[in-house]
Amino acid sequence: VKLALAELAALINPTALATDAATLEAYGFDATRTRGEVLAVVWPATTAEVAALVQWARRYHTPIIPRGRGTGMTGGSVPMTPSVVLSLERMTAIHSLDLSNRSVRVGPGAVNGDLQQFLAPHGFFWPTDPSSSFYCSIGGNIAEGTGGPKAVKYGVTKDWVLGLTAVTGSGEVIHTGAGTSKSVTGYDLTRLLVGSEGTLAIVTEAILKIAPQPQTKATIRAIYRGVKEAAEAVAAIMSSHITPSALEFIDAASCRAIETFNPVGLPDGAGGMLMIEVEGSVEGVATEAAEVERLAAVEGVISLRRAQNAAEAASLWKSRKALSPALLRINPQKINEDIVVPVGRLPELVQWLEGQSKEQNIPIANFGHAGNGNIHVNLMVDPADTAMMARAEPLLDTLFHKVIEMGGSLSGEHGIGTMKSAWLGLEVDPATLATMQGVRKVFDPDGILNPGKIFPA
Amino acid sequence: VKLALAELAALINPTALATDAATLEAYGFDATRTRGEVLAVVWPATTAEVAALVQWARRYHTPIIPRGRGTGMTGGSVPMTPSVVLSLERMTAIHSLDLSNRSVRVGPGAVNGDLQQFLAPHGFFWPTDPSSSFYCSIGGNIAEGTGGPKAVKYGVTKDWVLGLTAVTGSGEVIHTGAGTSKSVTGYDLTRLLVGSEGTLAIVTEAILKIAPQPQTKATIRAIYRGVKEAAEAVAAIMSSHITPSALEFIDAASCRAIETFNPVGLPDGAGGMLMIEVEGSVEGVATEAAEVERLAAVEGVISLRRAQNAAEAASLWKSRKALSPALLRINPQKINEDIVVPVGRLPELVQWLEGQSKEQNIPIANFGHAGNGNIHVNLMVDPADTAMMARAEPLLDTLFHKVIEMGGSLSGEHGIGTMKSAWLGLEVDPATLATMQGVRKVFDPDGILNPGKIFPA
Repeated sequence: VKLALAELAALINPTALATDAATLEAYGFDATRTRGEVLAVVWPATTAEVAALVQWARRYHTPIIPRGRGTGMTGGSVPMTPSVVLSLERMTAIHSLDLSNRSVRVGPGAVNGDLQQFLAPHGFFWPTDPSSSFYCSIGGNIAEGTGGPKAVKYGVTKDWVLGLTAVTGSGEVIHTGAGTSKSVTGYDLTRLLVGSEGTLAIVTEAILKIAPQPQTKATIRAIYRGVKEAAEAVAAIMSSHITPSALEFIDAASCRAIETFNPVGLPDGAGGMLMIEVEGSVEGVATEAAEVERLAAVEGVISLRRAQNAAEAASLWKSRKALSPALLRINPQKINEDIVVPVGRLPELVQWLEGQSKEQNIPIANFGHAGNGNIHVNLMVDPADTAMMARAEPLLDTLFHKVIEMGGSLSGEHGIGTMKSAWLGLEVDPATLATMQGVRKVFDPDGILNPGKIFPA
Repeated sequence: VKLALAELAALINPTALATDAATLEAYGFDATRTRGEVLAVVWPATTAEVAALVQWARRYHTPIIPRGRGTGMTGGSVPMTPSVVLSLERMTAIHSLDLSNRSVRVGPGAVNGDLQQFLAPHGFFWPTDPSSSFYCSIGGNIAEGTGGPKAVKYGVTKDWVLGLTAVTGSGEVIHTGAGTSKSVTGYDLTRLLVGSEGTLAIVTEAILKIAPQPQTKATIRAIYRGVKEAAEAVAAIMSSHITPSALEFIDAASCRAIETFNPVGLPDGAGGMLMIEVEGSVEGVATEAAEVERLAAVEGVISLRRAQNAAEAASLWKSRKALSPALLRINPQKINEDIVVPVGRLPELVQWLEGQSKEQNIPIANFGHAGNGNIHVNLMVDPADTAMMARAEPLLDTLFHKVIEMGGSLSGEHGIGTMKSAWLGLEVDPATLATMQGVRKVFDPDGILNPGKIFPA
């Protein structure tokens, strides 16, 4: 290993390589708090440097873990075996903004929020909008196929990437897609790379499609007696002619967490809450907001109000985005499962989860992107309570079976990583899985790019 | 071959196999008017039958050409060598409409227009909207990655397919994607299959994402002194906060063809025309239409008017959709090239084409989806004029070089097929091409699915 690292050091600027214990420690974990062994961290600055590093890794059969900002929720950037971490943090360029073509070129290390700030004065934005937007990287968004609240209207990351420059596991530089908003020239390798969790190629530049900012927005807060009623309102809105720009669901436990830690004045007895946003022209939004209020007023609604100004809307969204860390006050550990069911099955799912929570005596808080049927199911557990922990694992397994049985999917926007790979076969049949693994071999014949992710061992 | 065909006949209902000369003739060509040799036509009714047919083809090394309705523009369904044509015409089911999940399941043989008629009473539609919508099949749309005028707002076919059942060239049945609007479980094989022109797998069922119909629309017709001015208006609109639901460009030659064969009262001296559609709520559309009119009023505008009613708008769209056949009256043959450039480069492209038309003395008519930078360049030629034909071929080559030099793409929505495969290497570099071919080998190890398409020989 020593010899190989010396050769690695010769490939890159000495300031762009670290092997000290503190750095290795800092680059070995992600938001799952799982941890792996890091041999070295490298920060390449160019596509050519990334290619040289991958070729080195191939020669020495050393796994390479591409890493954005480490905010992933499924272990995507955590080494499974001793590995070199390839951080994209230095490749942060944002350039070639082309407004009439609605495109911009970015390095994979550019922070999502920095891109949004760059685009805002031009009246545009990039619709991928995770809760971690002020910290996460575009490359990480691409690797994991990030969604966020706006996905119900705008779709997810794959819908907003036009083309990629990437280095495959063979160390070859490929260029996928095009710089235009339409192209059907050969196979769509762009979308294949989006969501592939760094197991096919390392993205070194992306051409993103951007969207114009709407003139105005309205945010409506609807509170229901129970989760079932809230879920019924979601189905009513999604069956209508209106496409909200956000349709977020927050269950009773999550409402209580908001009121305890970031109070926004929710009424007592809130059994379920929706945050609904519509956007467009001033005149269009006024009409659509009124229509959404009519649709949201299903039986069991307790309160229905429109944010009166931007500050009130911002405060509502702030609570929503702060929800994930706030839940940690219920119990010290959160097992966050990002699952999806067809929108019409949400009432059944949330009621089933309420039953499971009682039956297993594990607090469960559910919230998420209801317009897509995408719910973050959070099992709030105490690792010190071994009996509780022993009940949590089979409950997860039961949940995944339930989701697939309902025609859903194991992950809407967090990916599979290491956390869900054991269950991949529940959703993906053997022939399809073998095809995916065949594709992986084409891009990464030696399996050196982020090994151990997505596929069951 | 005789023995193999007898075995084929045993796999399928006898009424679902034809080997008579008239049928073989009818299934050997597409809209390019190129023609290939057909050994037999089969009409499977189920995924299992498709799998059995592919397994048969694999045993006998016989190419299989999957075929929708034969409306393709690049030879995608034309055999290159003697082949069995697998027609999806019997697999026309449209079922499992799920409004709140905004999804529907269809067989690949379902006609696009039939799906639209099925969805309309529910207030929904599928945004893939080619000129051939009343005849072409959903499977063909998926295979070629069809666009159409609505793509500027809604995106193309790949944006509206959630999941697929397909039979690979190994004869294996795979299931890609999910039944939900979000899923990042494993690689996105769905988007890989869309636009792969039947060279990876034969789609036997698709889960489509659907969109709610807007409450209302407005159509604006803007006429300019020249193509340059029209193209400048396109850039102004696309740089604004408005996303039109169509932004079509029609050049002087195409305007003349409309006035000669389907007159709609265009003024004399129309050097370029735009058809701009905005949609949404009644209130929102009124505001946006006024804003579009302001943006479209660049220097050189001759006339700017809003269709006063649905009949007038329909008549404008009818002329636009009839344009392609109308052009054939200029000269008996149309060489239609579907190219894309960044939107801001349109003025340069259309002026360059005007110059080439004069220089080479070949009538060129240009129209298309300007909001995407996607122009259909039509060389109107007379096959009897050998000198003209001799000038046309190098002009095509020059055009493709020009498009790539401008940062564009060889095809926006018609695919590569056989017509453009010789130029694929202009846009796709060798490493990326080798990766695509590696992917093809994973799906179709023996190269029996639609061989000779996309990739240069």
